[in-house]
Amino acid sequence: SDLHKRELLCIFGTGDLGRSLGQRLLQTGYRVVYGSRRPHSCGPLPPGAQVMSHTEAAQLAAVVIVCVHREHYDFMEEVAPQLKGKVLVDVSNNSKKGLYPESNAEFLQSLIPAASVVKAFNTVSAWSLQNGPSDAHRQVFLCGDKAEAKQAVRELATRLGLSVLDRGSLSAAREVEDFPLQLFPEWRLPLCIATGLTAFFFFYLLIRDVIYAYVEQDKDISFRIMVSLANKVFPIVSLIMLSLCYLPGVMAAILQLYRGTKYRRFPDWLDHWMLCRKQLGLLALGFAFLHVLYTLLIPIRYYVRYKVTIRENKTAVFDTTSAWRTDSYFSVGILGFALYVLLGITSLPSVSNALSWREFSFVQSKLGHLTLLLCTLHTYLYGWNKFLRPSTYKWCTPPGYMLCLVVPSVVLVLKLLMVLPCVDRSLGRIRQGWERTGPEGEGTKPLMA
Amino acid sequence: SDLHKRELLCIFGTGDLGRSLGQRLLQTGYRVVYGSRRPHSCGPLPPGAQVMSHTEAAQLAAVVIVCVHREHYDFMEEVAPQLKGKVLVDVSNNSKKGLYPESNAEFLQSLIPAASVVKAFNTVSAWSLQNGPSDAHRQVFLCGDKAEAKQAVRELATRLGLSVLDRGSLSAAREVEDFPLQLFPEWRLPLCIATGLTAFFFFYLLIRDVIYAYVEQDKDISFRIMVSLANKVFPIVSLIMLSLCYLPGVMAAILQLYRGTKYRRFPDWLDHWMLCRKQLGLLALGFAFLHVLYTLLIPIRYYVRYKVTIRENKTAVFDTTSAWRTDSYFSVGILGFALYVLLGITSLPSVSNALSWREFSFVQSKLGHLTLLLCTLHTYLYGWNKFLRPSTYKWCTPPGYMLCLVVPSVVLVLKLLMVLPCVDRSLGRIRQGWERTGPEGEGTKPLMA
Amino acid sequence: SDLHKRELLCIFGTGDLGRSLGQRLLQTGYRVVYGSRRPHSCGPLPPGAQVMSHTEAAQLAAVVIVCVHREHYDFMEEVAPQLKGKVLVDVSNNSKKGLYPESNAEFLQSLIPAASVVKAFNTVSAWSLQNGPSDAHRQVFLCGDKAEAKQAVRELATRLGLSVLDRGSLSAAREVEDFPLQLFPEWRLPLCIATGLTAFFFFYLLIRDVIYAYVEQDKDISFRIMVSLANKVFPIVSLIMLSLCYLPGVMAAILQLYRGTKYRRFPDWLDHWMLCRKQLGLLALGFAFLHVLYTLLIPIRYYVRYKVTIRENKTAVFDTTSAWRTDSYFSVGILGFALYVLLGITSLPSVSNALSWREFSFVQSKLGHLTLLLCTLHTYLYGWNKFLRPSTYKWCTPPGYMLCLVVPSVVLVLKLLMVLPCVDRSLGRIRQGWERTGPEGEGTKPLMA
Repeated sequence: SDLHKRELLCIFGTGDLGRSLGQRLLQTGYRVVYGSRRPHSCGPLPPGAQVMSHTEAAQLAAVVIVCVHREHYDFMEEVAPQLKGKVLVDVSNNSKKGLYPESNAEFLQSLIPAASVVKAFNTVSAWSLQNGPSDAHRQVFLCGDKAEAKQAVRELATRLGLSVLDRGSLSAAREVEDFPLQLFPEWRLPLCIATGLTAFFFFYLLIRDVIYAYVEQDKDISFRIMVSLANKVFPIVSLIMLSLCYLPGVMAAILQLYRGTKYRRFPDWLDHWMLCRKQLGLLALGFAFLHVLYTLLIPIRYYVRYKVTIRENKTAVFDTTSAWRTDSYFSVGILGFALYVLLGITSLPSVSNALSWREFSFVQSKLGHLTLLLCTLHTYLYGWNKFLRPSTYKWCTPPGYMLCLVVPSVVLVLKLLMVLPCVDRSLGRIRQGWERTGPEGEGTKPLMA
Repeated sequence: SDLHKRELLCIFGTGDLGRSLGQRLLQTGYRVVYGSRRPHSCGPLPPGAQVMSHTEAAQLAAVVIVCVHREHYDFMEEVAPQLKGKVLVDVSNNSKKGLYPESNAEFLQSLIPAASVVKAFNTVSAWSLQNGPSDAHRQVFLCGDKAEAKQAVRELATRLGLSVLDRGSLSAAREVEDFPLQLFPEWRLPLCIATGLTAFFFFYLLIRDVIYAYVEQDKDISFRIMVSLANKVFPIVSLIMLSLCYLPGVMAAILQLYRGTKYRRFPDWLDHWMLCRKQLGLLALGFAFLHVLYTLLIPIRYYVRYKVTIRENKTAVFDTTSAWRTDSYFSVGILGFALYVLLGITSLPSVSNALSWREFSFVQSKLGHLTLLLCTLHTYLYGWNKFLRPSTYKWCTPPGYMLCLVVPSVVLVLKLLMVLPCVDRSLGRIRQGWERTGPEGEGTKPLMA
Repeated sequence: SDLHKRELLCIFGTGDLGRSLGQRLLQTGYRVVYGSRRPHSCGPLPPGAQVMSHTEAAQLAAVVIVCVHREHYDFMEEVAPQLKGKVLVDVSNNSKKGLYPESNAEFLQSLIPAASVVKAFNTVSAWSLQNGPSDAHRQVFLCGDKAEAKQAVRELATRLGLSVLDRGSLSAAREVEDFPLQLFPEWRLPLCIATGLTAFFFFYLLIRDVIYAYVEQDKDISFRIMVSLANKVFPIVSLIMLSLCYLPGVMAAILQLYRGTKYRRFPDWLDHWMLCRKQLGLLALGFAFLHVLYTLLIPIRYYVRYKVTIRENKTAVFDTTSAWRTDSYFSVGILGFALYVLLGITSLPSVSNALSWREFSFVQSKLGHLTLLLCTLHTYLYGWNKFLRPSTYKWCTPPGYMLCLVVPSVVLVLKLLMVLPCVDRSLGRIRQGWERTGPEGEGTKPLMA
């Protein structure tokens, strides 16, 4: 009958992952046999699975999935004769990076040289196997030296509803094993930059505002740290980080123009910077979000309500210029923030995957630079005529928002130069593969080589 | 020529789904023949498809896709001889759960025992087949008893650009057929909790605020129901639900510590609770979002503007402690909300799929508990010294925000106990598979068994 | 050894894409040989790849990937004898639509009629191949005339971790080649509508508010353009566009009721309209978001702060009805906006893919109409008794919010009629395939035909 034709798989180890994997395989229509050191006392197994000794189990199946911690691999050598020519799937992870000189999978291969070791499934958790993959981490990395062994494991994973990505030979196993241990590696640099900028501007403004008031005017306004100071630091960091997002692109274009070719690699620091632009931008969006919340909160603060009840006595004259300036300043800020949020939404994986390449670059480049322009304009309007007033420069230091305008202004000016027709044309040619080959005349190097 | 080698598929039924499926199959390079009861008057079919009687059509193809409602399956018995040994794909859905004793696919199998019935494609709509799957529901569930039949259908689905998930034998067909009929099953419990809490706190605060003012002070402040009361109920429900998100995790840890093993199942209610933590958290985020909007709206309310113009006469003294307290309270609230939103974003399927397991648990556990801490602190700062003032306890009842502090405070204290070095170490060992096996001595049970 | 069994692929062209593709193929376990016009001076190639003349390279492999711009296809004719019977993969894109009379792939096929051309990989960029597909555009479209050739390329793409969608015969190549060049085609109509509505209401309100005040009262309130006017235009456009989202659904239902069948196609304009409902709704959400930000900003505007300090002198009587009205108006608006955001979140591809069909239609239809109802109610409450006051109609024109109530009110009334039991029953029958076939009696046409 059909049941006899169902493929039999062997699983070594009856821990959480072994059980969950076995259960899922049985549901998918495989037959499963467990190999265990203590076949008679290994706790509850999924119904329909058999359990026997490692040696017996290994003989029955062509594929053996090793759900055992690396520390217990030593028993494998006893089973070596039965594993000859079989596909051994190493699903193990370590608790830390760099615990062992070689990857678990390579270690397993060295123990059983006659088997074909394939590293796979180490990114899949027992939890997601049990609860179905709709919500879970479906991406499986796979590597190994034998093409047929990999093909067998690839089919297995595909039948389980997982999405497979081949990472090459077994020497990639270390990278695959390190993946579940990584903790936001590409966020590290942007987070450092954000922390550094926040700390710098916090202390800078603390001195300029709170300590200055205390020293020069003998007033204690330390309570302003919680909201007013935070609401100065956050927009400053946000604008600088947004401009740091677009600076490497401009620098790369300048480098290509200067070198006259796109075929020479960028320096490593520039490459690294360009790869973390998305993270820089998202952190900048986070700071902008905080800035918006802090700003909208202003009128319900005790301090502001108090000031309103005090201020009433003085009769003011309505100043239309002030009304124009503040309303423009708010309006530009809101539009900038709305575009910012749009950029954030398009960087969600599922949204960016639905965009064509041209659409993605339109949003991230055109709308991104427009966002930067609006946010910079917002800051200039905030400063207005205070740039020229000497009283602005307490203790000869410029206010924070002036400092933070430097980088975005530079980026915008350079970008403006880049879109001048003559520069744009040169850059376009270089990006299509043209090369300026020096004094021996203009060479054209097509894509075709 | 090549055209003769293209696989021929047979579709029974020329309704919406049959036509759309046929069109898509033709586009993908299959040949399609329709079986119809009235081959000469069955309306427009996709160009390139042939139409004939059921019997004739069934003879030509190895795979027959049955796009017919279950009510009309009776005609199938006449075609039974032609369907012997063929793969029959049942794509049907019912309009309600529990209409029939057995699933449609099992019923079909009982009508034609000599064919191999495979349940598939029932989650795919005619609409998404016509408009391309870029935006559509691409997940196809598949079940059946014959491995080769399933393999044939799996290949078919993969070629159509759909993503296949094998759910096992034909006995899973009922579950597969119920899937398109389900309406947020995992949201039901969290929604009930949210509704219950909202109703309770609404009436509690209605009595404490509005009715109390009416009875004791003879004032009609019923207009406060719309904004003030809502803005008290929403944050209370939000904080309680956020803490309910983290309570089961702490309880599970205590249970594991008490039992000394992780290999005994949790009680069903705890399992059920743990599986709906994501939904609890997202609902809590929704309530927090409403709280933020209601709070930011305060200064433009008519009532508040009125109060401002009235209050001006009394001259107040500026109180730095109040300024510190309210600004801290706002600042902690904003930071808590921002983290909250971050948690919500990482629970989007496409974002959580891009995270490694360690990253996901870092965000959901570490940042989650930090969010709970900030939000609880926000509420304590809101209460401040009112906890000790007798006038707070109108009619001897505590204000709503005090009631809502109970659960989060308990969760935070328990969590604090859990991260104490000694407790953390025991828990870590248990979670790696160690078992305390009672008086006969410490047993160690490795993953390997 | 195993290395000799690895499949060998040939790549023509050593440009960016050729190199990146070769590198990825080598990582995945293929052997790669490059064909180049200048094999000895073609720059750095991925380690492990060989480079030789086109003719030599073509002889070695069964699959040749052509990473060359169309302008350089002429060299292919020289290699024609070596390409006989081979699979030729055309990965090229053009820089503009409609540059050439036929698609690149069809042109290649006409140059080498003896080869099997398959169009593929043109949506994949060198960048995403180099940096892994976790973040990248993984969707590959594929078309071609020979089934076996397509199967070979499909396997290749699957091994590279890409997701393949078969678009049929080579005649679909033009469409596939146009895909990376498209720039939000489905957003064009909604953007036009949004721009048109914004412009109309901007000038309408400019005349009614600013110019009216200037002419009749001789006051310059032009500064109000930046915030007040924007905050009138945005909610108006948002509400109209939200109702335009639900209007075609109601119109389709009326058409089906009138025709008595669902089997006749809708007019093209209605089809087109229905396909851009999602975009209409998302733009409406964007305008609503701006409206919320502008509204919350009101109390920190200079103009409003100024008015507050002025107004204090007049003593007002507290009006409970006004308090009820304004608080209801705010509360309904906030709830409407929160539902709006929920609709936006469920239209994210990864979220909508996780929903069953019934869940998706529940959210988009039930919650969508509730959102429309709340937002319309919000606007009616805003108007309140001003509808009857003659002073509202400056220069005999109604205010903007009255104009914008027309479409949503019509949609809501029609929708209300649709859910009346008798209408709902007729519609339900029609949507299940029933047809009213005119005077010769009621015909029932089941799905089965």
